[in-house]
Parts: sequence; structure tokens; C-alpha cells
Amino acid sequence: MAKKNSMIERQLVHRTIREFTDQKVSKENLDTLMEVARRTATSNGMQSYSILHITDPQKQNAISEISNQEYIARSPVLLIFIVDQFRNNAIMREKGCDSENAGDMDRFTQGFTDASIAAQNVVNAAEAMDLGANYLGSILNDSEKLCQILNLPKLTFPVVGLRIGYPNQDPQLKPRLSKRMQVFENEYHIFDNYLEEIADYDQEMTNYYDLRNANQRVDCFSDQVVSKTSNSIKKRQEILQVIKKQGFQVK
Amino acid sequence: MAKKNSMIERQLVHRTIREFTDQKVSKENLDTLMEVARRTATSNGMQSYSILHITDPQKQNAISEISNQEYIARSPVLLIFIVDQFRNNAIMREKGCDSENAGDMDRFTQGFTDASIAAQNVVNAAEAMDLGANYLGSILNDSEKLCQILNLPKLTFPVVGLRIGYPNQDPQLKPRLSKRMQVFENEYHIFDNYLEEIADYDQEMTNYYDLRNANQRVDCFSDQVVSKTSNSIKKRQEILQVIKKQGFQVK
Repeated sequence: MAKKNSMIERQLVHRTIREFTDQKVSKENLDTLMEVARRTATSNGMQSYSILHITDPQKQNAISEISNQEYIARSPVLLIFIVDQFRNNAIMREKGCDSENAGDMDRFTQGFTDASIAAQNVVNAAEAMDLGANYLGSILNDSEKLCQILNLPKLTFPVVGLRIGYPNQDPQLKPRLSKRMQVFENEYHIFDNYLEEIADYDQEMTNYYDLRNANQRVDCFSDQVVSKTSNSIKKRQEILQVIKKQGFQVK
Repeated sequence: MAKKNSMIERQLVHRTIREFTDQKVSKENLDTLMEVARRTATSNGMQSYSILHITDPQKQNAISEISNQEYIARSPVLLIFIVDQFRNNAIMREKGCDSENAGDMDRFTQGFTDASIAAQNVVNAAEAMDLGANYLGSILNDSEKLCQILNLPKLTFPVVGLRIGYPNQDPQLKPRLSKRMQVFENEYHIFDNYLEEIADYDQEMTNYYDLRNANQRVDCFSDQVVSKTSNSIKKRQEILQVIKKQGFQVK
């Protein structure tokens, strides 16, 4: 028998929560979430990420505009996780050991991984506190503007946002691709016919209601893939230019 | 009072576990871990990542050589999380809607985030099962070779590895940077003197024993930053070239 417990049961019914009650997240709970974040594993022990806690309503508004999601302006807790090689580079400079490597692609991806896994660790802790969470990939719709809003120095870059609060909605569990399409043994497996493989899942998705869009029924998965990939936001495609502007020598 | 529970208490004492007992991880537990992974939030609902479960001793060995960590060859469970835009691109092609965007930097970072947060969700579930885990950033020491070993098609790329098993060691809690250096309110804060700010932490790190290096005392943090950034592995610095070889149009 698989050993299960309340934590895992919670993980198995994870849903994104976008609407929160007026109940505030206590300072103690927030402090605990930040302690959890700081306890997350980190590449080479370098801790190449930082967290910005956005409490200023004007900044919440500005981020809401970037993301084109009005609810961001009413976030009980709004966190932005960033790649941070600025701090370690400052330490190196003070030791008289400046290095070109500080902003290379390797360092960038290490910080990107650090920031991402810290965010998920916070999500798990938040859900263990009966809080709900909402990832914001949309903050990268205009990463250059976000860097300005957050006053991000060189060698830092935003990765993902997170809204946290007490749930005021109870969304359906969102269907997922079948395991056989996503988990492989020893090497990657290419299927002969993907549309055939996902036929059931495509059907399942049309029965799923996405609360985000005023309870509108959503497209089947394959249609979503087409529309979301084709209708790309221009500034999101220029993300590497902004990463370079932030001082990373990604080449 | 902050609401704590066993999950959060566990997160607050997270340590990397590199040595495991002979006890196998049951198929049921592994299945649960994969269900947890698949339930993780995913950018735009696109599920742009996949997981490879490496059971073949030869492949474990080959990955161990890339990582230059012998213990990888004796991993009770070895998982590799990858960016996967191949699957969604195949779906699009079958629908007659091939798009250049499928391999752009935006899609790459979305898959990278997806893969990373799924990995952390698995770590949390594993620890809830009294298993220990060990992230492997070292798999990127030769990402091109790893792509060959895993037979990764275009539009996929490895992100991070994870070893999981029953702990056979009880490492010290690893000290962390102070919160004031890593968590900021509303905007990034630059300190006047970083070495002064981390003086206590530097001292603390010299008292920390890293079990990885035969119980050798480790350098202070600032010395580690200098040595780890300066002594970069050449192939890790060429990572963007491999990402491009894998068909991503990152520009």
C-alpha cells in the first residue's frame, strides 16, 4: 500500500485559487512561508534568487496591468520570485574577484531553478495552512517594465509571481494529460499519433469549466495548444533581449 | 500564532539526502509521486514538461559520469525533469498548425518553470513519505551528452535531476543567508557592504560540515561564491548552444 498522508492528499487535489476572502494572511504565517522558501534546496548552495513581497497598492496595480489580470491588484499576498546573481556578484567584487561568469547562462538557469523551486515550496506550505495560491507567469508579459517597477539591478530577472490568500472559490480539478504521455522510462518515447493519444483528454477538457473566464467552457486541449502558441504576446518573445539588458551574458 | 503542522515542520528542516538505505521505493509510492508531479500547476495549462524515470543501470552510470558524482549510479529512484515542447508541437503539426513560436524563449522558460516546480512538488511528497531527495543540477555538466543518453527529441531539454530513497544519513541543517538579504518589500534593496552583511553567515558556514566531501569543513560562503563562480565547467557555459541544437529558437 502506498503511504499517503494529508500533505499528499492535498497535493493530489491541487487547484489554482484566484479569488480570496478578505481574511488577511497573518505576519506569522507569512514569516513561516518565507522561512520555508529560504530552506528550499538551492543550486550549489549559492541561493541565487530573491523574493519581493509587493504590498504597495500602486505596485500591485502596475503589475496587474502588465499581467492584464485585474485580480492581481487585490492580492492578499503578492510575491515575485527573481533570479538574483547581483548579490553574489557584489560579494565577489568586494573580495576583488569579479568574474564574467557571474552573468552567464549557466548562472542564469541556476537562479531560475532556485527561484522556481522556492516558489513551489511556498505553495505547498501555503496549502498546508489552508491558504490557496495562484502562480503568475503573466508577469513576464512585459519583463522590462516589471524590472523597472521592482527596481531590479543588473544580474537579476523576474521568474514567476505568486498570489496567496484564503480561498473564496472551489474550482474543479483540472484534467491532465495521461501519465503515459508525460512520464517515460529510460528514454523519451515518441508516439505515432498524438491526436489519437489525447482524444479522451481533449474530450475531458471540453467538460471542464475554467472559473477564470466567467465560467465559460474551455476549448479542448489541442485547440488550446494551437491558440496559446500561435497568439503569442510580442514582448514575451523578446524576453531574451531583456535578460541581456539586465546584464546577463547569455550566449 | 502561526499555524504550523507536520508538513511545514518538515519543510523547515529540509536537508539534501545523498546516501540511501537498500530499502526500495515501492511502485505504489513512485506512482503517487508521479501523480503529485502531474497535479502541479503548469504555465498556461500547457504541461510543457516531461519526466524520465531512469531505471537502466547503464544509463544511471552514464549520468553519474556526466555529473561526476559516483552515487548517482546507485540511485533507488532517479528522475530527470525536462522541458518538453516536442509533445505540444507534435499536436500542433497534426492539426496542421505548425508555429515558429513552439521553440521560442518564452516557451522554453515556461517549460523550464513547469519542470522545476513539478520537481519540488515531488520532493515535498517524497519527504512526506519519509523519503529523502537530492537535486542534481550537475546533469547539465554535459547537457548535449545527456540529451543523447535520454534520446531527447527536438524541443526538449533537461532541467534538473532528482534522486529519491530512504535516508541513510542525517546531515546538519545547512545555514542560509539572512532573510533581510533575500526577501525585500516592494523593491530590490542594495546593501552598502555585502561582506559586512554576511560576516556572521560566513562564520556560521565555516562551522558547517558538508557530508558530501568526506566530512570536510567547508569554506565560508563568500569564498564558495568566488570559487564556484570562477571555476565554471566549460560545457555548462555552452548550455545555450545545446539548447539551440535541441531546436529552440532562443534569440
